[in-house]
Amino acid sequence: MTAPINSSDNNLRNFLYPRSIALIGVSTRTGPETFNILEQVLAGGYRGRIYPVNPRGGILLNLPVYPSVGEIPETPDLAVISTPRTAVPAVVRECVDKGIKSIIIITQGFADADEAGHRMQEEILAAIEGKGARIVGPNTIGVVNLYENLNTSFIGFLRRQADTAMICQSGIFLLGAADFTAGIGLGVDIGNACDVDFSESLDYLGQDSRIRVINLHMEGLKEGRRFMEVARRVSAAKPILCLKTGRSEAGARAASSHSGSLAGEDHVFSAAFRQCGVIRVQNVEEMYDFNKTFLTYQSMPGRRVAVVTISGGAGICAVDACSAAGLEVARFSEKTVSKLAAVFPDWMEVGNPADIWPAGMTRGYQDTLELSLDTILEDPGVDAVLVISPAYLDPGEDPKLDISIPVNRVAARHPEKPLTLWIFGGYRRELAARLEKENRVVVYPSPERAMASLAALYHYLYEVKNHHWTSPPVFADMDRKRIGDILDRGGKTGGGTINEEALQILQACGIPVLPARVARNAGEAMEAAESLGYPVVMKIVSPQITHKSDVGGVRLNLGHARAVEETFSEMVETVSSLAPHAAIEGVLIQPYRPGGVEVLLGGKRDPSFGPVLVYGLGGIYTELFRDVSFAVAPVSREEALAMIRGTKSYRLLQGFRGQSPADMETLVDCLLRLGQLVVEFPQIREMDINPLLVGPEGAVAVDARITINKKV
Amino acid sequence: MTAPINSSDNNLRNFLYPRSIALIGVSTRTGPETFNILEQVLAGGYRGRIYPVNPRGGILLNLPVYPSVGEIPETPDLAVISTPRTAVPAVVRECVDKGIKSIIIITQGFADADEAGHRMQEEILAAIEGKGARIVGPNTIGVVNLYENLNTSFIGFLRRQADTAMICQSGIFLLGAADFTAGIGLGVDIGNACDVDFSESLDYLGQDSRIRVINLHMEGLKEGRRFMEVARRVSAAKPILCLKTGRSEAGARAASSHSGSLAGEDHVFSAAFRQCGVIRVQNVEEMYDFNKTFLTYQSMPGRRVAVVTISGGAGICAVDACSAAGLEVARFSEKTVSKLAAVFPDWMEVGNPADIWPAGMTRGYQDTLELSLDTILEDPGVDAVLVISPAYLDPGEDPKLDISIPVNRVAARHPEKPLTLWIFGGYRRELAARLEKENRVVVYPSPERAMASLAALYHYLYEVKNHHWTSPPVFADMDRKRIGDILDRGGKTGGGTINEEALQILQACGIPVLPARVARNAGEAMEAAESLGYPVVMKIVSPQITHKSDVGGVRLNLGHARAVEETFSEMVETVSSLAPHAAIEGVLIQPYRPGGVEVLLGGKRDPSFGPVLVYGLGGIYTELFRDVSFAVAPVSREEALAMIRGTKSYRLLQGFRGQSPADMETLVDCLLRLGQLVVEFPQIREMDINPLLVGPEGAVAVDARITINKKV
Repeated sequence: MTAPINSSDNNLRNFLYPRSIALIGVSTRTGPETFNILEQVLAGGYRGRIYPVNPRGGILLNLPVYPSVGEIPETPDLAVISTPRTAVPAVVRECVDKGIKSIIIITQGFADADEAGHRMQEEILAAIEGKGARIVGPNTIGVVNLYENLNTSFIGFLRRQADTAMICQSGIFLLGAADFTAGIGLGVDIGNACDVDFSESLDYLGQDSRIRVINLHMEGLKEGRRFMEVARRVSAAKPILCLKTGRSEAGARAASSHSGSLAGEDHVFSAAFRQCGVIRVQNVEEMYDFNKTFLTYQSMPGRRVAVVTISGGAGICAVDACSAAGLEVARFSEKTVSKLAAVFPDWMEVGNPADIWPAGMTRGYQDTLELSLDTILEDPGVDAVLVISPAYLDPGEDPKLDISIPVNRVAARHPEKPLTLWIFGGYRRELAARLEKENRVVVYPSPERAMASLAALYHYLYEVKNHHWTSPPVFADMDRKRIGDILDRGGKTGGGTINEEALQILQACGIPVLPARVARNAGEAMEAAESLGYPVVMKIVSPQITHKSDVGGVRLNLGHARAVEETFSEMVETVSSLAPHAAIEGVLIQPYRPGGVEVLLGGKRDPSFGPVLVYGLGGIYTELFRDVSFAVAPVSREEALAMIRGTKSYRLLQGFRGQSPADMETLVDCLLRLGQLVVEFPQIREMDINPLLVGPEGAVAVDARITINKKV
Repeated sequence: MTAPINSSDNNLRNFLYPRSIALIGVSTRTGPETFNILEQVLAGGYRGRIYPVNPRGGILLNLPVYPSVGEIPETPDLAVISTPRTAVPAVVRECVDKGIKSIIIITQGFADADEAGHRMQEEILAAIEGKGARIVGPNTIGVVNLYENLNTSFIGFLRRQADTAMICQSGIFLLGAADFTAGIGLGVDIGNACDVDFSESLDYLGQDSRIRVINLHMEGLKEGRRFMEVARRVSAAKPILCLKTGRSEAGARAASSHSGSLAGEDHVFSAAFRQCGVIRVQNVEEMYDFNKTFLTYQSMPGRRVAVVTISGGAGICAVDACSAAGLEVARFSEKTVSKLAAVFPDWMEVGNPADIWPAGMTRGYQDTLELSLDTILEDPGVDAVLVISPAYLDPGEDPKLDISIPVNRVAARHPEKPLTLWIFGGYRRELAARLEKENRVVVYPSPERAMASLAALYHYLYEVKNHHWTSPPVFADMDRKRIGDILDRGGKTGGGTINEEALQILQACGIPVLPARVARNAGEAMEAAESLGYPVVMKIVSPQITHKSDVGGVRLNLGHARAVEETFSEMVETVSSLAPHAAIEGVLIQPYRPGGVEVLLGGKRDPSFGPVLVYGLGGIYTELFRDVSFAVAPVSREEALAMIRGTKSYRLLQGFRGQSPADMETLVDCLLRLGQLVVEFPQIREMDINPLLVGPEGAVAVDARITINKKV
């Protein structure tokens, strides 16, 4: 027996480049609507050895059918199982006994279905355990390799080859590749992903030098952190686009019954993708556009776009789209302006967008277009161009309006700057086909889609591909022992929630906290206030009370001993009457620090990615405006800054309305330390610092709460 | 001489249905790239009488050319001018002298261009003044009437007739109609809109019974209120879709140089459109989708959508799209579930989305689809269906996967519920053409576009078409005289800004205000506090100080006379040192009212729509989160409520976090009164009530400011 294979590389190679395939459970019926895999594999033109398996034996489509896997005269590289689901576990065991290392299970009805299905999926996994065999599926159409004419699907489809790859959880993304990714080279439908998963497939496809864009259709993710590690490496070499579905609550519910995926919070996926360079696409149209974009354009010096139009009205649409996509409307150099002014009519101001129609009507459209494009692309202030042109006439019949020749000539002269087009009219497709034939330009169906694609290209080139990812710092000064002790104790006595002691944990973690003392009587309260310094804040302490101010349990700005004394008894009385069942443990005394910006820092555990950080504006506005950002913890300094800058409330910290700017360094430091805390102490299920008061010189945690896992 | 024609109806009829046309300035060159209007009018198949005019005379394309307009043997219904721009004013005068009532000016270079162009546009307008003649343009391609084979453009284009109309400011929307509006019936390019404008064209097309959808491409609007009045009437009969461009700042700049349009604030357009039933489309693709949708579907009982899919993965995309569009994912009745369960495999749970693929593989795809669709469409809990189906195979070659026959059969049986499709794969267009041939169903290129279209249909049917627009109430109890007096005085003495007296205007307007008295010394301050009742708030009064708290000019919660006395001198001293150049007029004393929600009510003047109202959360959050809504004033009770509900901060008023709900009635009343105020007093350029404090029982304006126009 051979040693278990550790390199995923070898395993996926056999799935995608098998020299021989066993097709187990293949139907004996052929023709339309019989969904016969053997027929499709043959029709695809696969040139390896094929072994159909069916207990009936005989001959099918000129090939001998083997009654069982054991009777196949060699050990095939790949087995494709499409038997009824109840037969699958036994067939997998037969394959393993035969020594087959790569198994695709087409059959549905496992973790995607009922209880019995879940059990059978477990059985299958048990069958390969320790045997070095790997499974793609179940609930998949398998793999596609158009370089080798291989397609394990039971459906034929239009094969449009392109240097893109797809890893999906639904076969339609392989079958509909012509529509979704503008063609395909390699594809894996991981289906329920019981064994081979996103990370492994991504790792393999990242190393395939022919593949230039990798697409993911993702419903859920098990090992988010491993995925991020792989994606960060692969995205430096080629763009990874991901259509993550189940973003809505209803969609997430549907996802869990489709591929048995457990989808974490959708915002966390977006954050994780940003942290590892995966570009999230919004829908199938964007996926299509971005694939064409990345296959066509390799460079773009900056984000300044010029628009060359035959219609002022269309030019305005393009400018709106440019702004919405976060790109800049280029300003032409004086040289460009004077060159264009020489051909434009006198009454027309030259600017961007440049409307070449009036000039084209007198000088000839094709010549004017070519001259304008060359002039504009030579302008060092222009990084990309969108050409807006009509396709009202059949380009075959009216060659004078066929712009494909001048456009491709110009594109060849300026390969460093994307030359894109938006064309419209009844002959859009005919003209687009001519324009795109040389793979130098992309024609988009709207200015919005053109600009979104250019923005994605810019993002990939400067914020992913050539980006240096820094590591999260590690703080050696954390008092781990003290943190562990409080967590242990809190978990036992506090019923899983730590309130007042949470500030001590933060302190041990190196996060500045507002000093606080718990007083059990008015005397202790005055003593505490005296030692902390006036004015002070008083808050009720009770494990049963979460929103303290709702029951009169908060008083601010108490300036002298008498006020503290009076407040103590008043507060205990009020709270007792409003919350009669709450056990009052005392009153917390803290110095009163008005001013500064109140922010919220939080940590929680995501089912896909583990510990994540949350940052946002404190107080009621967090909930009202959902102005929060997420990141998978721990975070680098750069990621922490990006979290803060990603909120609208960031302006408050910059010195809004004449205030002094907040101490960003300390705020970032708090996020970094909190990230390390939630990673190092998995018993923390959820925690909030709310508020952390950030002033011009420092920040302090005023209040915090931690929920603990019962058992880790 | 005939009397001036008042009915716009007659004038536009001559533009769109002329029995005879003079083509003035027609080129003598013909063929590709000569842009010869005569050639295009003839090629279009126009059957009326045509009179080309060119000083050279002669014969052109078998028609006699007249050297001048005066020599035409009749008075043509329509003149189309395409001479060089400097000749246009004289030609217009010739047309008017000839008695021509409808004139299209194709020529560019007027208000869309330089100073000379602006002057010539004025000359043209002077030429028709009082003569009963009307102008479309300049800077236009004129009109299109595909029912009569009329097209005054200088470009030929694919003519796809549909019962839609287009009013635009850029000819591409007529020429590219196949792409933008799925075909066209009637179209007017109003270009610079120097005379015939949106309102008039909309009014006319609203009355044309063949036209079922009206589209607008709008860069700017002069008489916003007249437009709204017409649109409200027309939108009750047929949907009006508007692509308003220049939404970005850069786009708005480009618009002003394209058609000389002055674009007001983009948010105000959105608000105005909502108030008059115009549906704003985001881009040309949405325009295309919505046109097809409105031409195909006439009813939709509710917003609950069922998804019938061949792919669980695609079903999840559809559910996400459904939620994002504001539609509901339907819940199937027990009857539906049991009927589907009878054909679905045992292991599969029946739900929405319904994945019919496993059943289809065993029972035949077409039959399963037809049965499932009938079952689901009969469910009273389902209002519309999206079918997701592949187009992997050529439907001509694989008729078993051609779903167009069962789908159209089902659609014919359920005309009251939209049956929509998303199909994908290499043969999408071929299959879509078969599906859409009977005009019963629409095929969309993505689930997002399908759901957005259904949402637009629902919105039109229930929130526009059958909507009863109520009128703004008129408050007879406003003290107009007092308001006018203060405004007059304030405008004179206050340098155009009214601060403290603004509350008196509000009071006269019937808006509750917090009592306030200005004290000039500590004694007056104590007296005022005594009479208003403790605790009080004190605020500095100075015309030079806007942000009072920034200079120590605000103190809250003063509980007794001594505190008031001390604060007075402290405040004057602090403010004097921090703002040494400010003239301090005194200190304002108001009762201290903590609690309640602080909102902002404002009014300002928009260049397109005149007086508009602004509503939002008060304080710094207005600016930070831009959580504001607009409406053209005055507003109805319903519109005022919609403004408030349209903000995220609405939840604060509903009783957020256990607070009592706010007094909505009083808040609405304040908005209504403010609306009437800004309409009745045009000398108010801009005003703010910030904050208006809204509590559970009533609301009070705490602070207000009014800016006055120098001269009205």
